[in-house]
Amino acid sequence: MIMNATIAEKEILTPEEFLQNWQAHRRLTRKVIAAFPEKELFGFSIGGMRPFAELAKEMLAIAVPGLKEIVTGIQTTYNHDNNIQTKQELLDAWDEATEQIEVYWKQIPRERFRENINMFGEYNFPVFVNITYAVDNEIHHRGQGYVYLRALGIEPPAFYDRW
Amino acid sequence: MIMNATIAEKEILTPEEFLQNWQAHRRLTRKVIAAFPEKELFGFSIGGMRPFAELAKEMLAIAVPGLKEIVTGIQTTYNHDNNIQTKQELLDAWDEATEQIEVYWKQIPRERFRENINMFGEYNFPVFVNITYAVDNEIHHRGQGYVYLRALGIEPPAFYDRW
Repeated sequence: MIMNATIAEKEILTPEEFLQNWQAHRRLTRKVIAAFPEKELFGFSIGGMRPFAELAKEMLAIAVPGLKEIVTGIQTTYNHDNNIQTKQELLDAWDEATEQIEVYWKQIPRERFRENINMFGEYNFPVFVNITYAVDNEIHHRGQGYVYLRALGIEPPAFYDRW
Repeated sequence: MIMNATIAEKEILTPEEFLQNWQAHRRLTRKVIAAFPEKELFGFSIGGMRPFAELAKEMLAIAVPGLKEIVTGIQTTYNHDNNIQTKQELLDAWDEATEQIEVYWKQIPRERFRENINMFGEYNFPVFVNITYAVDNEIHHRGQGYVYLRALGIEPPAFYDRW
């Protein structure tokens, strides 16, 4: 107990705080999904890029499957295919992932974060580096969704609106 | 020494690792700046958004001034004005900030990361939360720069190209 208290006082970020920050980002991403009209969510893009629904599906294909691999140790391949074809299905899948992230996260022992994992058989880094990469990737693509929305004349949610 | 070793083994992220990840992101952002033609860097935008030079100037206005405030305790206001008018001046300012970030970061004692600071008199959060917000903000706006580049027919650097 004393050792844990010492760590919590000294470390710059706890696993729980990292999770909370990620889920806050995911709430903002959900608002960005919701801000798109159905047709443009699946069809609008700029400069040959993917529509925002495809970017969101990429985020879904990384988050829970990645955590599942960390927890179970069973290596999977990255698989972006799914049957999501409507905005509501995408939002429902997003909410389901929100719950599953909570479940899997709590099964990652603290010492695992610094252990290497070859995620999806492609990304051979410590667990924490892989998870950080996933969150950064979400922020990156969501920022692109902001430009799509602006181009469509739609005001995106504020960057700090994560509740 | 024993306590420090215990922390390093148990914590998910050290201050040095966070710094390295940030500087890696900043190397990628520098490549995005460099990928823009001079005129479009300062003049091109989509949907009424700011040109990428303005977004990069915002990143500069946050990074070193924010760290300086953390280290010195002297509160400043956010000031985005500067005299940068060319791509080379922007890249030079970026490189200068890269060095200054190293200097200031090393002056933040580990226990400060969890302390509150009212950064720029506006953002009243723990130091680490403020710094994370700044990095996330950079990733967010850089992602927007990717869309600008694609719209201009220019291939952006890969998201993982951070060396």
